[in-house]
Amino acid sequence: MTARHPHTPVIGLDLGGTKIAAALVAGDGTVLARHSLPTPAARGAEAVLDALAEAARAVRAPDAAAIGVAAAGVIDPVSGTVTSATDTIRGWAGTALAAGLAARTGLPVACDNDVRAAAATELAGPCGGGAGRGGGITLVYAAVGTGVGGAVAAAGRMLHGAAGVAGHLGHLPSPEAGGLPCTCGAAGHLEAIAAGPAITAHYTRISGVPADRLETVAARAAGGDPHATAAIVLGARAVGRALGGLANTLGADRVVVGGGVPRIGALYTDALDAAFAAELMPPLRTLRPVPPRGGPDAAVLGAAALPRTLPLHHPDTTGVPR
Amino acid sequence: MTARHPHTPVIGLDLGGTKIAAALVAGDGTVLARHSLPTPAARGAEAVLDALAEAARAVRAPDAAAIGVAAAGVIDPVSGTVTSATDTIRGWAGTALAAGLAARTGLPVACDNDVRAAAATELAGPCGGGAGRGGGITLVYAAVGTGVGGAVAAAGRMLHGAAGVAGHLGHLPSPEAGGLPCTCGAAGHLEAIAAGPAITAHYTRISGVPADRLETVAARAAGGDPHATAAIVLGARAVGRALGGLANTLGADRVVVGGGVPRIGALYTDALDAAFAAELMPPLRTLRPVPPRGGPDAAVLGAAALPRTLPLHHPDTTGVPR
Repeated sequence: MTARHPHTPVIGLDLGGTKIAAALVAGDGTVLARHSLPTPAARGAEAVLDALAEAARAVRAPDAAAIGVAAAGVIDPVSGTVTSATDTIRGWAGTALAAGLAARTGLPVACDNDVRAAAATELAGPCGGGAGRGGGITLVYAAVGTGVGGAVAAAGRMLHGAAGVAGHLGHLPSPEAGGLPCTCGAAGHLEAIAAGPAITAHYTRISGVPADRLETVAARAAGGDPHATAAIVLGARAVGRALGGLANTLGADRVVVGGGVPRIGALYTDALDAAFAAELMPPLRTLRPVPPRGGPDAAVLGAAALPRTLPLHHPDTTGVPR
Repeated sequence: MTARHPHTPVIGLDLGGTKIAAALVAGDGTVLARHSLPTPAARGAEAVLDALAEAARAVRAPDAAAIGVAAAGVIDPVSGTVTSATDTIRGWAGTALAAGLAARTGLPVACDNDVRAAAATELAGPCGGGAGRGGGITLVYAAVGTGVGGAVAAAGRMLHGAAGVAGHLGHLPSPEAGGLPCTCGAAGHLEAIAAGPAITAHYTRISGVPADRLETVAARAAGGDPHATAAIVLGARAVGRALGGLANTLGADRVVVGGGVPRIGALYTDALDAAFAAELMPPLRTLRPVPPRGGPDAAVLGAAALPRTLPLHHPDTTGVPR
């Protein structure tokens, strides 16, 4: 299988709600070419598949061996389909992502959730391969942004779980969330108090003052507003406690906190770290959360790595064209 | 390696705080011989190792290939030692369990936590091998008794985690636990409201009436005492919610609730099941907790299976005597 050869370039595609990023990535992780274009989210799933194919063509070298796609939503790498998704992309749930892209490009395709793809880059290299049991680390990765998502790897292997659901740590019960309604339909979940919009809503709830977005709340906290500070610290504490509990449950070697919300700064990360540390069982006492290793390229590099470990979906034409 | 041959009998030892159970188990799971003796817990680690060796000798067939030991506490199968433990057995933390028993018996020894060993029997057979991703199920197993422990398997493989800690789901933050102190030194953990003694203590806290043990609280609930009912339902709900959140986080295919507390009956299990179901994300909606498959033999059968998958610690004498 050419795609599993470490020196063959692979196309990585990072599909977001507003932008598609494409890169041709060499076996050593070097980005050989880049392209980006807007996601035609309002025009539906077929238009998005067309745009992904266009992005792949724009960076394609003659010898590209495969495509890896990192996409939002619950993605099942085995069937290559979107198990469930919000309505950011019209009609996205149920889309045959891998088959549709393979048919359009003539290349084999592997796909996974975008957070899981980015988190997989934490497993590569000296830390991922060496520590922990069974030849690899146990990793808990949280992505705190518009929602609270994540990824979990055990013994160096990324978990997918039933229906590709693994990593949805935003849907753990949280003492900080009280009975607040969650996007999933349940109540009292971590996401309901710790996602960016949830922090903003909580600020308004305790202050009575409207706020348009998290950056506004963060600015008010920096200016000394105690309600803004309280809402941010509560969201951080909720994430820290949940991650500490998961570290106990899984025996984590590494805990990563990514996403946009931690960019608030030390007010957020100090509260998160303190709450995390207070939860840990004695054998884990020295463990602390760290920021993601990968920079802005993490998602597209993670996407390009997917064909090495996940099932490849081939174009219908046997004798794959290259 | 003889111990990995499926037809060679293996000695399984289940070490509890009050009793050691031993069985000689054939490759097909048939128990060929049994023995049990009291755990000399007060006499310390060396005396317990002597008693384990005595139990092994009592069931030993001439061709027994190895010993598997399932023991309480945090056990590290890689080093074969007790990482940490309560004081039920004097001086137990730090004991070189596998090496000490191998030296006494002349047989190779594999060891693990007792709950993990019992849970491993859930992975065998048609359900364990077939469903899920990557050739095996994702299992969340809770053991609710004097404490709240458990085990987690992903893609059919039992997780051990850093320092052998994996499975300690009693140390997840629980909305039902408020700020109650936990045995681990933290506060607000599941174990602090859901373990048997925690339910009994909560009953006394809300009723003002003393109770000696969980069975007393259960009898009062059966007799119509609303405080007894409330304490039991709260403990059940806390476990159900935590397990639902873990099912979301790991994409569980199978959730098992074992231990002594669920034997309270339908008052407990109905409340647990309802709380669990209310937490689930849409792709998991049909999942429900089930009781353990294994009967009273689960721990000793799980112990006997350990040498097939875990590192074996050999006696110092090379050319292993049989």
